[in-house]
Amino acid sequence: MAKVHNYSAGPCILPQEVIKEAAEAVLNFDGLNLSILEISHRSPNFVTVMDEAVALVKELLEVPAGYSVCFAQGGASLGFLMAGYNMIGDHKKSAYLNTGTWSDKAIKEAHFFGDVDVIGSSKEDNYNHIPKGYTVPTDCDYLHYTSNNTIFGTQFKEVPNTTIPLVCDMSSDIFSKKVDISKFDLIYAGAQKNMGPAGATLYIIKDEVFTRNRIKIPTMLNIETHVKKDSMFNTPPVYPIYVSMLNLRYLKSIGGVPAQQKINEEKARILYAEIDSNPLFKGVAAVGDRSNMNATFVLTDESKQAKFDEMWKAANISGIKGHRSVGGYRASMYNALPVSSVQVLVGVMKALD
Amino acid sequence: MAKVHNYSAGPCILPQEVIKEAAEAVLNFDGLNLSILEISHRSPNFVTVMDEAVALVKELLEVPAGYSVCFAQGGASLGFLMAGYNMIGDHKKSAYLNTGTWSDKAIKEAHFFGDVDVIGSSKEDNYNHIPKGYTVPTDCDYLHYTSNNTIFGTQFKEVPNTTIPLVCDMSSDIFSKKVDISKFDLIYAGAQKNMGPAGATLYIIKDEVFTRNRIKIPTMLNIETHVKKDSMFNTPPVYPIYVSMLNLRYLKSIGGVPAQQKINEEKARILYAEIDSNPLFKGVAAVGDRSNMNATFVLTDESKQAKFDEMWKAANISGIKGHRSVGGYRASMYNALPVSSVQVLVGVMKALD
Repeated sequence: MAKVHNYSAGPCILPQEVIKEAAEAVLNFDGLNLSILEISHRSPNFVTVMDEAVALVKELLEVPAGYSVCFAQGGASLGFLMAGYNMIGDHKKSAYLNTGTWSDKAIKEAHFFGDVDVIGSSKEDNYNHIPKGYTVPTDCDYLHYTSNNTIFGTQFKEVPNTTIPLVCDMSSDIFSKKVDISKFDLIYAGAQKNMGPAGATLYIIKDEVFTRNRIKIPTMLNIETHVKKDSMFNTPPVYPIYVSMLNLRYLKSIGGVPAQQKINEEKARILYAEIDSNPLFKGVAAVGDRSNMNATFVLTDESKQAKFDEMWKAANISGIKGHRSVGGYRASMYNALPVSSVQVLVGVMKALD
Repeated sequence: MAKVHNYSAGPCILPQEVIKEAAEAVLNFDGLNLSILEISHRSPNFVTVMDEAVALVKELLEVPAGYSVCFAQGGASLGFLMAGYNMIGDHKKSAYLNTGTWSDKAIKEAHFFGDVDVIGSSKEDNYNHIPKGYTVPTDCDYLHYTSNNTIFGTQFKEVPNTTIPLVCDMSSDIFSKKVDISKFDLIYAGAQKNMGPAGATLYIIKDEVFTRNRIKIPTMLNIETHVKKDSMFNTPPVYPIYVSMLNLRYLKSIGGVPAQQKINEEKARILYAEIDSNPLFKGVAAVGDRSNMNATFVLTDESKQAKFDEMWKAANISGIKGHRSVGGYRASMYNALPVSSVQVLVGVMKALD
């Protein structure tokens, strides 16, 4: 069968090399003559997988000393709650930047813990840009933001300046570009974009957080629980973590985050160049805030929609229909999407008349 | 390679038929030429999987009208917390039966919501039996128990009598025997015993619960969130749910829960008969409370341990070492363990001298 150009917004494309090894382990893991689906998470073979996954995260993201890495479940949506539980302190107040649907949901959960100061928002403009010029209050326990906004196609190009602890939902651009981890107190990310399949969530936390004056935290929502037990306080999502480990191992093999970042920048350059030069298309997000992960664009002449849709489908492109809250198209160019798939899409855009 | 007799306590053995299909979907799901690991959870193909998984749970467990079924993440350990959040009401007090390590952890989380009345406990006897003769107080919002205790090898043979709402952690015996769901207000179960691989958690809830006077519940911990959004409020653990669906489809194909229950009773009968008749072995749990899922036993003559261990390993048996808090051996006979594997173990026990 012809290769599918998989632009799925998430869960998203994974490298073929990873998928092959992932399938083999379902049949026979590590030569044990057992499936990875039916072994104990406390077996030495899986403990090795977990240790390697954590070590790869630390190496690939250059996680500094004084930080811990662990895996949990529940996705970023549970992360919204865990951020509050773990970070709220004496101020009983948090600051948030509202840059999209996921920020908005994070803000909703933050209200569970006290006042929320939304210090910047692009909600009124359907989140078509990243807010600027905001002032970070000093009477909040932390500032929270969403680094990349999958639905609207915007991305922070700089880490916000703040003197209060910084928390980031990096679900959709972690491992896609270099990040200075030392600027953050807490980072969380659902696996299902650039880390692996759905079902695992990554937490990176400054150990100092555990020493602060915190509220009473339920066991499973306390990140310290998972850190102290090496992500095995309870049965972890074995297979999603295994495939994430394979994917991170693959990322390392191609040169790590810097090499991947170059590929991602190249893909974004090619696609945005076409959006900007082709009069039949128009970008949705403010140019300076454009995401390298999710490019959102619309047709300038809606009457061409049926034809364009027919053309990209014929080219074996899948997953570029825009989210209902934006419309048009969204090309998600996560790590595993090859440059050649972007060239195919651009070829279709050029051929439209 | 020789077949492994997989007695893993969980994640545990799954049917070979399921594993083969599960591996194929990693390479090419539904003929899409895409891996199930890299498709959107909102794709029609996966929505069909989710719908079938929920329908199979309802059919196999004969879930009555007025109940909802959904999948979430976090395992039973997060279920301990969700039980409290969803069930605590005006009494601000709950009743618990303490029958093992997992009950004990559930009780710890319940303290988050108010007073906890532990109305029966076998903790003093290292949980070697199921407490009886307790009185269920009427001034509690619910009674919670753990239907099967994996570490100690005990199992409730009857559902506790109660006039207050009943909550059960059925992680380790759901789908293994017929249960009258109408007796319960809430049932939860981690997937990784008889449902599927690690990473998904099943919730069965009486809809009436949602109409009660409840406390403020964070979005992701409110079971109603997951019910209302058909287990897709956020990205679900796609692959664990897919494999669970395959496994439930397999269970249906062999005759459903009644057929499986007969197989499970046969396996337990064979193994306990050997434990009781062989003077070299002794059961750990009270005879009337013995689990059909996890048989715990010890050698009557410790000096034979090295020899016995060598013998079962030579027979390609894996996973029967007892939990550190009990010692000895634990043979977990979950649904997918064939009778023939029990016969191999019994053969080894008979051959020991």
